[in-house]
Amino acid sequence: MDYDLLITDATILPLADGRSDLIDRGYLAIKGDRIAALGPMRELPAGGKARDTIDGGGNIVMPGLINTHCHAAMTLFRGLADDLPLMEWLNNHIFPAEARFVNAEMVYWCTKLAAAEMIRSGTTCVADGYFHENAAACAFRDTGIRAVAAQGVVDFPAPGVPDPAGNIAAVEQFIDSWQGREPLLTPAIFCHAPYTCSPETLQRGKELARRRGVPFFIHLAETEFEVRESLRQHGVTPTRHLYRLGILDRHTIAAHCVWLNAEDQRLLAETGARVASCPGSNMKLAAGIAPLAELRRNGVVIGLGTDGCASNNNLDLFEEMDLAGKLQKVQHLDPTLLPAQAAIRMATLDGAEALGLAGQIGSLAPGKKADCILLDRKQAHLTPLYGAALLATAANGRDVHTAIINGRVVMRDRRMMLFDETETMARVRELARKVTSPT
Amino acid sequence: MDYDLLITDATILPLADGRSDLIDRGYLAIKGDRIAALGPMRELPAGGKARDTIDGGGNIVMPGLINTHCHAAMTLFRGLADDLPLMEWLNNHIFPAEARFVNAEMVYWCTKLAAAEMIRSGTTCVADGYFHENAAACAFRDTGIRAVAAQGVVDFPAPGVPDPAGNIAAVEQFIDSWQGREPLLTPAIFCHAPYTCSPETLQRGKELARRRGVPFFIHLAETEFEVRESLRQHGVTPTRHLYRLGILDRHTIAAHCVWLNAEDQRLLAETGARVASCPGSNMKLAAGIAPLAELRRNGVVIGLGTDGCASNNNLDLFEEMDLAGKLQKVQHLDPTLLPAQAAIRMATLDGAEALGLAGQIGSLAPGKKADCILLDRKQAHLTPLYGAALLATAANGRDVHTAIINGRVVMRDRRMMLFDETETMARVRELARKVTSPT
Repeated sequence: MDYDLLITDATILPLADGRSDLIDRGYLAIKGDRIAALGPMRELPAGGKARDTIDGGGNIVMPGLINTHCHAAMTLFRGLADDLPLMEWLNNHIFPAEARFVNAEMVYWCTKLAAAEMIRSGTTCVADGYFHENAAACAFRDTGIRAVAAQGVVDFPAPGVPDPAGNIAAVEQFIDSWQGREPLLTPAIFCHAPYTCSPETLQRGKELARRRGVPFFIHLAETEFEVRESLRQHGVTPTRHLYRLGILDRHTIAAHCVWLNAEDQRLLAETGARVASCPGSNMKLAAGIAPLAELRRNGVVIGLGTDGCASNNNLDLFEEMDLAGKLQKVQHLDPTLLPAQAAIRMATLDGAEALGLAGQIGSLAPGKKADCILLDRKQAHLTPLYGAALLATAANGRDVHTAIINGRVVMRDRRMMLFDETETMARVRELARKVTSPT
Repeated sequence: MDYDLLITDATILPLADGRSDLIDRGYLAIKGDRIAALGPMRELPAGGKARDTIDGGGNIVMPGLINTHCHAAMTLFRGLADDLPLMEWLNNHIFPAEARFVNAEMVYWCTKLAAAEMIRSGTTCVADGYFHENAAACAFRDTGIRAVAAQGVVDFPAPGVPDPAGNIAAVEQFIDSWQGREPLLTPAIFCHAPYTCSPETLQRGKELARRRGVPFFIHLAETEFEVRESLRQHGVTPTRHLYRLGILDRHTIAAHCVWLNAEDQRLLAETGARVASCPGSNMKLAAGIAPLAELRRNGVVIGLGTDGCASNNNLDLFEEMDLAGKLQKVQHLDPTLLPAQAAIRMATLDGAEALGLAGQIGSLAPGKKADCILLDRKQAHLTPLYGAALLATAANGRDVHTAIINGRVVMRDRRMMLFDETETMARVRELARKVTSPT
């Protein structure tokens, strides 16, 4: 056999070489976990044989989307308490629910549900951060999704880590368990935020990340309140606070980055720190609008994220593409800002770059890992199709019918191939009944 | 037979009596074009027989959505030219394309495509405004969607009305053709805007609307530029300009209403004029953010709209619900503004009220017209389901599998029942090829 999987007759968006044009009647050939070749059908080598063939039928093939910021297990709290002031939402609903219900079993099933939702809506790689991340990593492995799984760190007792003195050690143990063990799983560390981790914890966490060569995640400058508190406590913005502690570099991914002044932006650009922007979450929780157009002009690499489900209330990265562009336009009253092509890039190649995976995923090119999705093009809301921009502004996750990760078909014609989704939903519904039953 | 159609075992969101709770195992019975009864399954009259039964299977039944502002035929221009400055978009792309391609045949097929997209995404009633509206009305009739179809009026030569002196007469002729002829079709007038219609045209248009008892539509205060120009030309805001001309009353629906000062808002509230808000369009075209929370506090009735497809780029009203709420929250940094329940109401009962149809549609109650949709609840992104709010914040149009309008099943398990959707898409694709071929 020449190939393991051959997709024929598809409209392909390779997103390679900085281009965003479509190959109209194209093929994509996969061998093992990698893309072997792609191009117009007429260039498909005659007699090229494949173990399995998918008739693209004119449908769209594009790189799988990359969710650079998620707390997957929070699907359990989807819509549990909405439209509330942030502190009431956190202190009276989310934190108490987390304290009562977060355990390894909950993290496993609720992460599995999140992975199902993400695969269904076109995400093939997710950067996750939560407690009991070992259980999350197991869930990701069992669903076939690619993941950067980061064990959470805070300076107070947390699910699975009752004594905060052991929080960094717990991360190292997690890294030991997973590093180099599963081809699709990259372990990482998630120091929750500059206001929940002491300078010492942040520095010890970053030291561990450097020593073990893993990504370092942190929430940064999400709310105006956070910036005010940082100025009061440390005399500097949260971004400069991290800079002074030596936390910012190309392997640090800062989620949100809504409240940045010009100096903060310069520090991110100068250090090469990455941004994971979550427009839907920032809207729902009323955090604010991140300066994405400006950050991009400054050369900062930005990926998109959904954040945890309770802050959204879904995990559809197609929606985040649309929101990212539309929000910049309406905030600055300038329709030229963050065009659809840029939003698509943020959800794919730039997301890969943010996670340090751009050499492997994020675009369709020979030699890259075969992470791609097929979308049903023959639908009213994608007609006519003048170009790829509709993928950001008209498509949604439900248009994805097939998902391929690392060369393996994980969803085919909307059927999950590797695990029992019905069981997963039933397990989460059962947990949800406990959440709403009287204490 | 007791009923013509019976839906059993569904989760029902009636939205009647100002409530938004779900009936968990419920039934909905339809006789002719109306809802005969609904309630918990245990109250379903024993032996109640129906010509046709839909097993709800635990799925969600809610009122069909009401799109209060659309230019349906503009599906042809979906994604034709995005991310451009407004005047360049209009003058170099949309207006020339309209001048070349808008004719009765184009309006028929492109409106039919829009109707397909709307039915598929849960819209069962649309307020449309365009040229050649007679062809649009034929398209709506042939798809089974309920429509308020408004013939467009501008003071310059327009498709189908080459001499603007005849623009009001053309509307009256359109009303003559349709008034009282089709139960689902309400003819209306759409005076394009205060800046494209003279005071005389506006007054003659409103006089016609009053005389014939039809709704009057107009674009109002969409951009800051429009307000500045009105102040320069008329010395007053566009809203006060319309007020002085006697245009504002309960039968006038003003689309957009982004740029309103306190006085403008008072005039809308005092006259009872309705607002059709299009958050997605206002974001894409960078018009601004309409003061929805404030308008609601002032008692103004607000419906939601998608606007024309080229301004969006789709016609999914579920997205508009989500955007409406999230935009208010992020603009005012207040997560309590415009809760999900309010967004759902705007897309249903308030939309009906805006169009003068609240006695007939917008909620599920005995005696009302049977316009409702069924959504697939057993999906990852709707799990768990703590309440109806997820319909605004996690659901999307693709979750709708069945649509019933005026008691008739127009889509069943995502199959269109009354017309050939494949032919419609093929016709529009053919027109689109002309749009992109060299002149």
